Amino acid sequence: MAARKTSVLLFFFMFLALSSAFPRNKNKYKPCKHLVLFFHDIIYNGKNAANATAAIVAAPQGANLTILAPQFHFGNIAVFDDPITLDNNLHSKPVGRAQGMYIYDTKNTFTSWLGFSFALNSTDYQGSINFIGVDPILIKTRDISVVGGTGDFFMHRGIATINTDAFEGEVYFRLKVDIKFYECW
Amino acid sequence: MAARKTSVLLFFFMFLALSSAFPRNKNKYKPCKHLVLFFHDIIYNGKNAANATAAIVAAPQGANLTILAPQFHFGNIAVFDDPITLDNNLHSKPVGRAQGMYIYDTKNTFTSWLGFSFALNSTDYQGSINFIGVDPILIKTRDISVVGGTGDFFMHRGIATINTDAFEGEVYFRLKVDIKFYECW
Amino acid sequence: MAARKTSVLLFFFMFLALSSAFPRNKNKYKPCKHLVLFFHDIIYNGKNAANATAAIVAAPQGANLTILAPQFHFGNIAVFDDPITLDNNLHSKPVGRAQGMYIYDTKNTFTSWLGFSFALNSTDYQGSINFIGVDPILIKTRDISVVGGTGDFFMHRGIATINTDAFEGEVYFRLKVDIKFYECW
Repeated sequence: MAARKTSVLLFFFMFLALSSAFPRNKNKYKPCKHLVLFFHDIIYNGKNAANATAAIVAAPQGANLTILAPQFHFGNIAVFDDPITLDNNLHSKPVGRAQGMYIYDTKNTFTSWLGFSFALNSTDYQGSINFIGVDPILIKTRDISVVGGTGDFFMHRGIATINTDAFEGEVYFRLKVDIKFYECW
Repeated sequence: MAARKTSVLLFFFMFLALSSAFPRNKNKYKPCKHLVLFFHDIIYNGKNAANATAAIVAAPQGANLTILAPQFHFGNIAVFDDPITLDNNLHSKPVGRAQGMYIYDTKNTFTSWLGFSFALNSTDYQGSINFIGVDPILIKTRDISVVGGTGDFFMHRGIATINTDAFEGEVYFRLKVDIKFYECW
Repeated sequence: MAARKTSVLLFFFMFLALSSAFPRNKNKYKPCKHLVLFFHDIIYNGKNAANATAAIVAAPQGANLTILAPQFHFGNIAVFDDPITLDNNLHSKPVGRAQGMYIYDTKNTFTSWLGFSFALNSTDYQGSINFIGVDPILIKTRDISVVGGTGDFFMHRGIATINTDAFEGEVYFRLKVDIKFYECW
């Protein structure tokens, strides 16, 4: 039953795959800095303690912490510390960590609220980037806000376009994050 | 007992009703965009599964997830997906969803910390607005930060003045949100 | 002479460079406002209900709400309402409250994600300051973003350098917060 629901949703996902969350954004500005990164989230399901990079830590009444909650995961909060890579390979050398939380916040579709940061520590970039925003997961590309940064991203602001680049069941997903800074200092 | 506590608080609320959170704000700036919206929160109490738009998902030791925690709800985290309307009628056609969380964060009075977004999808507005701030609930009007936006609110910043426009017991509240953008792009 | 002073300073800077989170930040900007404040966090451990200013409200599977979780507290969310003081004395008259949450988000070291606000209410300052950022706790000084403010801090942005000024076991810590605003309005 759950599997069937999922496959219907997957179809819906593919159908929507060409659209972006807010198509009317006729952005006339050029970014002053541009970065494309990937991060990889492996959620703890009771069996993958060694590999898991995220854990469910809050759930609505009646749900538990190893299975995502029944109504489109509504009410789950997951905490994560995910490797960031330059390409889409989970096993590439990480250039930093994506840290923070996501909250599944709708009962009748998949959406989440994101509060997280990139802590980058590579030869190219040292600093943090802070993100806040809504994530209507089933839409191909979603825009969230870059609300601040430190180090090489001192006082930066911008927009990050996120895209679920790959996922495996409800355990792994990879997010492509296309960060365009419009305020660079 | 709870009822008595509530009525004492209501009295306190009325007493404070004329004040705003930080009265010294002698703001000399004019907004470049201005929006007034309402959102409606119905918290799950174990009996209203069909109508509830919010759920308690975290609580301090000893508390549960269908009754707000004893000490001014200290330690409760609620996740929500609330309809946004143009007027104060819960049954008006929604123009979007308010999504995110509120955290009751004080043991001896009602205050909360807000991290949420408006996802607007109407003929007038398409885009998201991201909010962060403290909410000293018993004060009539409270200011929080608009830290970013996307779509029609690309890179916007501003101040949102929130106001508990109505509430019914501990199950329903309506928030009036007066958004003044001072940075519009 | 000036050159020599510079090189001494550079040497000093390099020496310190090991102890800050993102040492390459060669910030050339002067703050338009500067504030140094302390806040004091006493976490509830099942025995200190009267004094506690923070509580664990979420934990990963298998952990509880009175003992921080086993793997570097990974997965714990704490909600707090901490007194803010002008000096490092817990018993000094508070000038406001630090309110929000911290999330322990790494399994193999101590890091946290911070979402909180200062609500200041003193003769000197009335208003709120909103913070977001990663906190690699074991590093001496860490930079987070000031993403907005209200009242006397209307629309402000900046960087806060935080520093664990003192701690006692896993029950008390004091954070020194050096706030440099670079956007003041």
